[in-house]
Amino acid sequence: MTLSGKLIDDKVVMDRQAVEELYATSFYGRPKGDTLELSLTESAYLIYTGKISVVSGEEELDFKRFFLRASSIVKNFELLYIVYKDMRERGYYIQPSVTGFRVYPRGGHPGKTPAEFFVFVTSERIPLSLSDLRANINTVENLKKRLILAIVDEESDITYYEVRRTTLSGSCELKPERSLSVASLLEDRVMVWEPEISHLLHSEWFFGRPMDEGHLQLSLVESCYLLNKGILGIEQRDREALDPARFSALASSIEPDFLIKYRAYEKLRDSGLVPKTGFKFGTHFRVYKNISNISSLQHSDYLIHAVAHDHVFLLQQFSRAARLANSVRKEMIYAAVNGGVEFIVIGRVRL
Amino acid sequence: MTLSGKLIDDKVVMDRQAVEELYATSFYGRPKGDTLELSLTESAYLIYTGKISVVSGEEELDFKRFFLRASSIVKNFELLYIVYKDMRERGYYIQPSVTGFRVYPRGGHPGKTPAEFFVFVTSERIPLSLSDLRANINTVENLKKRLILAIVDEESDITYYEVRRTTLSGSCELKPERSLSVASLLEDRVMVWEPEISHLLHSEWFFGRPMDEGHLQLSLVESCYLLNKGILGIEQRDREALDPARFSALASSIEPDFLIKYRAYEKLRDSGLVPKTGFKFGTHFRVYKNISNISSLQHSDYLIHAVAHDHVFLLQQFSRAARLANSVRKEMIYAAVNGGVEFIVIGRVRL
Repeated sequence: MTLSGKLIDDKVVMDRQAVEELYATSFYGRPKGDTLELSLTESAYLIYTGKISVVSGEEELDFKRFFLRASSIVKNFELLYIVYKDMRERGYYIQPSVTGFRVYPRGGHPGKTPAEFFVFVTSERIPLSLSDLRANINTVENLKKRLILAIVDEESDITYYEVRRTTLSGSCELKPERSLSVASLLEDRVMVWEPEISHLLHSEWFFGRPMDEGHLQLSLVESCYLLNKGILGIEQRDREALDPARFSALASSIEPDFLIKYRAYEKLRDSGLVPKTGFKFGTHFRVYKNISNISSLQHSDYLIHAVAHDHVFLLQQFSRAARLANSVRKEMIYAAVNGGVEFIVIGRVRL
Repeated sequence: MTLSGKLIDDKVVMDRQAVEELYATSFYGRPKGDTLELSLTESAYLIYTGKISVVSGEEELDFKRFFLRASSIVKNFELLYIVYKDMRERGYYIQPSVTGFRVYPRGGHPGKTPAEFFVFVTSERIPLSLSDLRANINTVENLKKRLILAIVDEESDITYYEVRRTTLSGSCELKPERSLSVASLLEDRVMVWEPEISHLLHSEWFFGRPMDEGHLQLSLVESCYLLNKGILGIEQRDREALDPARFSALASSIEPDFLIKYRAYEKLRDSGLVPKTGFKFGTHFRVYKNISNISSLQHSDYLIHAVAHDHVFLLQQFSRAARLANSVRKEMIYAAVNGGVEFIVIGRVRL
């Protein structure tokens, strides 16, 4: 039997019978006194499945009419509908929330279990600011839930990502005692000329890349770190010595995002991790938790990309980064650089 | 025995003996009358291997001094040196050229065989304009060689990419006869409401994605194509009909690169290929050469990203795209949209 409801503003209001038939058995809507209130998303789905019919004034709204109406009332209605339908049909009970939806764990439902995750629904076309993402993480972490990002692409396919904060640490400890050598800043990299120092820096502490048996090339972030720690002096080709401030300024002129990148590098190194360039993966760093021997370099654990606190993600890039990390069995992590450095993992999930 | 040469401007000049010992046996340098001219790259390598020593005026330049000097004479000297050394040590004979180096095929050498490819050397930090890339492709194709891009990352690791033009065609033919239906433009996608038309568009011609059994969602490019071909009418939520010009304008306001993307889509469809969204791969399209049955959708063949003629590649993105395509066994292709659409394949190569 089809129950009948009324479209009032951005809700559909059903009478008492619906509380029994829709809420008590299948957890659609929210009981309000003697009535049941449905969101437009829930209503469209219930019209589609033939469980309810809806009138607006005198007019009965079929699926097409209701959908067009809802789409002009609720921003991103189509996206919400697609995700709602997908999750319902995977057997989840799901309720509206501030971020989009609250989702109950399999086997759970409202009144029996707490919600397990909050789903934030968006389109691949909508840029996502890091500050909005962090605000969502905060909201959800305060409630001790998991945050899921549901990104709907232009063909209405949904990809689900879990997003969470993490802390990182590794086992590589530097024991700097004294300044070891003076290296030269060339065009956009630094060269260590002494064979023994090259060997120590590379084989023991995993810095740089040997150009040949005697000479080691260091990247700008590596050089800056060694300079800051007092392990290495650096001079220009004309033999003018560079202090850390001057080196950073030069490095920033070579590489515009040098400072953001360096802050992440420093944090990782200080935490015992070994970051090496992630260029081949299109990120700033690939990162090793443990390196025991430089000649048998194992699989790196993370791909890490440093972003400034006011960064705005294009979801296409976000998606590509997560996909690539997944295909090489690494975790994709963004290092959000502000006062400190905060690590945010994103990973595709199958619900 | 060490041969001795003189640094003069940006060359090292060797005497007659070097023609015999360096050129005739190992194809270093270019004979000029009674002398042999070496580039600074060649010279640094020969100093490193102990085959020559070099003086500038009265001063003998050891490897470090020569390298620093060369690095201030030749732009990107370090990059050129790293690539030169790598290729020599892989057993290739290699000569300077307009793009960077000419490389002879294995077993070949100057005077015996023509060069096989031209190597263009660059750093991950240097943005690469599409127009420069196309100019290089033109140069190299006119000479009937292959173009290799050698990209040196911040840790001096080299990745080699082959870049070439290609033409594409597939077997999917549309036989449009008449306008089939009128669909609705919602927020950023289009909905087809009739079940039979939805089925035809999806199952026979591989457009869109079914939202459920009766309704098909089309992306903006798909809708625009069907509208332009007269197969579909499109109206707004208020039932106002949209002509192609108005639809394109609206789509461009939703998706800033709509027109570039559409031009690539149209070219691909007109060539019998089926482009679907490449969102999960971080590109505009994944493309199928042959689809026989929508329910058993096979592996797609290409990842295609549309770029405007004045596009500038960030090599980190370039690298990520090529890496991702490789990891999912597809070809990465850029569609350069200008007067026409030109397809440029990039693929990692191991030399």
